[in-house]
Amino acid sequence: MKIFSTRFHVRSYECDSYGHVNNAVYLNYLEYARMRALQENGFTLDTMKEKQYLIVIRRIEIDYKHPLFMGEEVLVKTFTSSSRKTSGTFTQQIFRAGDEKLCAEAKVTWVFTNLKGKPVPIPEEIQTAFVIG
Amino acid sequence: MKIFSTRFHVRSYECDSYGHVNNAVYLNYLEYARMRALQENGFTLDTMKEKQYLIVIRRIEIDYKHPLFMGEEVLVKTFTSSSRKTSGTFTQQIFRAGDEKLCAEAKVTWVFTNLKGKPVPIPEEIQTAFVIG
Amino acid sequence: MKIFSTRFHVRSYECDSYGHVNNAVYLNYLEYARMRALQENGFTLDTMKEKQYLIVIRRIEIDYKHPLFMGEEVLVKTFTSSSRKTSGTFTQQIFRAGDEKLCAEAKVTWVFTNLKGKPVPIPEEIQTAFVIG
Amino acid sequence: MKIFSTRFHVRSYECDSYGHVNNAVYLNYLEYARMRALQENGFTLDTMKEKQYLIVIRRIEIDYKHPLFMGEEVLVKTFTSSSRKTSGTFTQQIFRAGDEKLCAEAKVTWVFTNLKGKPVPIPEEIQTAFVIG
Repeated sequence: MKIFSTRFHVRSYECDSYGHVNNAVYLNYLEYARMRALQENGFTLDTMKEKQYLIVIRRIEIDYKHPLFMGEEVLVKTFTSSSRKTSGTFTQQIFRAGDEKLCAEAKVTWVFTNLKGKPVPIPEEIQTAFVIG
Repeated sequence: MKIFSTRFHVRSYECDSYGHVNNAVYLNYLEYARMRALQENGFTLDTMKEKQYLIVIRRIEIDYKHPLFMGEEVLVKTFTSSSRKTSGTFTQQIFRAGDEKLCAEAKVTWVFTNLKGKPVPIPEEIQTAFVIG
Repeated sequence: MKIFSTRFHVRSYECDSYGHVNNAVYLNYLEYARMRALQENGFTLDTMKEKQYLIVIRRIEIDYKHPLFMGEEVLVKTFTSSSRKTSGTFTQQIFRAGDEKLCAEAKVTWVFTNLKGKPVPIPEEIQTAFVIG
Repeated sequence: MKIFSTRFHVRSYECDSYGHVNNAVYLNYLEYARMRALQENGFTLDTMKEKQYLIVIRRIEIDYKHPLFMGEEVLVKTFTSSSRKTSGTFTQQIFRAGDEKLCAEAKVTWVFTNLKGKPVPIPEEIQTAFVIG
């Protein structure tokens, strides 16, 4: 099973009055990393809309371990930690890229649905990329 | 012609490392105030999608005059300052509500379009609310 | 122990391409509700900086149960569900205000620290408001 | 005088219910590009705080010319278009990177101030990078 890596820099407007990245922004980072992982595997939101399915987030658990600061480079690692017929869980780790200091760790539980929100089996074409074999 | 007033509080995550509201957030405030003005006049995004038109922003000019801080109450005044067949300009003023200190002033130029982006005449039902008579 | 209630409307820019409130924005709502609760009890960020302590979020668990849409009124309820000498957990529930439909539920674990990040006992003056007696 | 180029991808949460990048997010992009330009020239927010000055935005004019969509690569070009003793104007252009389609153009007027907001002469060490000779 693959680990997807995504890198970018902390932006000034993502930081709060202590100069730290705001807690909610970590969820932006996680979403961005998941989208990049999907895109690298040929799945854009357009593809998904066209095929009439979407990935709905059901639950997020996140542990904040170390603050991130403006201008620092961030590394997000994303991998599937469990999967079932219609749903699964990503583990996502947010590192300060310079020294791979772990800054946050999250478990993100999702379900594949049709456009009406009904769970559907994970499409075959993305099973190889996203599902534990 | 009517002036629409909208009130809310500065949120912590909208402030940057100086404790000021971030410059881009002022555009969020302006959009929120315009949406509330539309909603109060019976125009939701759903209505607009249903009727197949949308309001596209073409240009924004904003002068930042005084910073806003966390927890302060904000008052936004929105009114039409000019209008033509398919387009118009809102003037929007952002005040610190407590003493009506003017913190920013903006001119927002918009055009009515169909879903393909072609300009269309401003719908009659919103002319009374949005257009200078 | 008190339950703090906070009300506001979903803003257009908080919604994603499905018209739903974005997952990360729920954390903005939770932070805003906590800040309002603090403010109503006389604790602003300034007070806290002055007194040299801050509240650091260690962990968030959030279950997304039902989507929120543009323009809907939101009600957030915040209460302390457990507390210890230097730390505690808030339970926060996000409702669609109209019919009190539960849209998300979160547990937010925090610790009181000094400005260097060292945990310190919860100040007496906020124990009555925040701590389970 | 130098042109600073910055590249990145549109993130999913930056898009609104039409799938376009939200108008306010363009100001985030402009700020990010300015910060990268400053950083590449050795000026971080920390340096600036240490040296007791800051760059305050006084006015932004932005023309929205073409929408940006999720996943597209963005190119921002930043250059000084005028400068005086304590203030200046950046011109910033936002392109879809693939074909250098111009999507937005902005003029950003700023002033150098001390931490109390009083205008001060532009520091010598950044004149070469930021000022028209």
